[in-house]
Amino acid sequence: MKLPQENETCPVARAVAAVGDRWAMLIVRDAFDGAARFGDFQRRLGVARNILADRLRTLVELGILALRPAADGSAYQEYVLTEKGADLFPLIVALRQWGERHLFAEGEARSALVEKGTGLPLAAMLPRTQDGVVADSAAVLVRKPA
Amino acid sequence: MKLPQENETCPVARAVAAVGDRWAMLIVRDAFDGAARFGDFQRRLGVARNILADRLRTLVELGILALRPAADGSAYQEYVLTEKGADLFPLIVALRQWGERHLFAEGEARSALVEKGTGLPLAAMLPRTQDGVVADSAAVLVRKPA
Repeated sequence: MKLPQENETCPVARAVAAVGDRWAMLIVRDAFDGAARFGDFQRRLGVARNILADRLRTLVELGILALRPAADGSAYQEYVLTEKGADLFPLIVALRQWGERHLFAEGEARSALVEKGTGLPLAAMLPRTQDGVVADSAAVLVRKPA
Repeated sequence: MKLPQENETCPVARAVAAVGDRWAMLIVRDAFDGAARFGDFQRRLGVARNILADRLRTLVELGILALRPAADGSAYQEYVLTEKGADLFPLIVALRQWGERHLFAEGEARSALVEKGTGLPLAAMLPRTQDGVVADSAAVLVRKPA
């Protein structure tokens, strides 16, 4: 597989090249929420078929989704998150928590991501040091490669 | 300010509408890393001036960046992260940590985000329940608004 932006030494830049696309991020969101077949994604996203097909193909090429025969034994194929794809869960949670905090008015109706057992929303996800202390951007620096 | 996708009840979708753009995410990354003037962003990103101007204007309209007179008293204007923009730090860290894990070969040169005091990289940032237990996507569900 050709990695995106192989000459980029910044992991953020490579990640953005791979998944920094509106449809790609929403497809990954819906895969976490149980969408598996082409028609699932199409119905949820209301996106043109050719765009959806293109983004799904790219996500498979990048190893974020994999194609497998449908679980019900039918002739359908399903898209499933690989381990690499499943590791995007913090990214989707980061988008969600920022959206919850800054893009909704007080009391405005919105979906919630809750723990199955308790029904409680997840804790605010924040970057932390190895010691577990919350680290804001002033507490860190970017060290370029030698 | 008009919120992106006001009819969307999913916070992920609204967040993606606001910042789910390659250049927007890299501009925010560079703002965390100290870029402030138009020329700073242009040099770091190598992006066409008209595209950069468009993305900066949108980020200001969204309240993610604010314009202020240059700190050195010159005639320049500077772009600074607002509180809403600063709250995107977890998103940039999520992109970085996923990129570090999945888009670099073992030992390949890359930049690192380290704690200023210790020089250590941040801990892996993972979604957690209110009790502090790591929550993967199987442990949660999306509750739609009533």
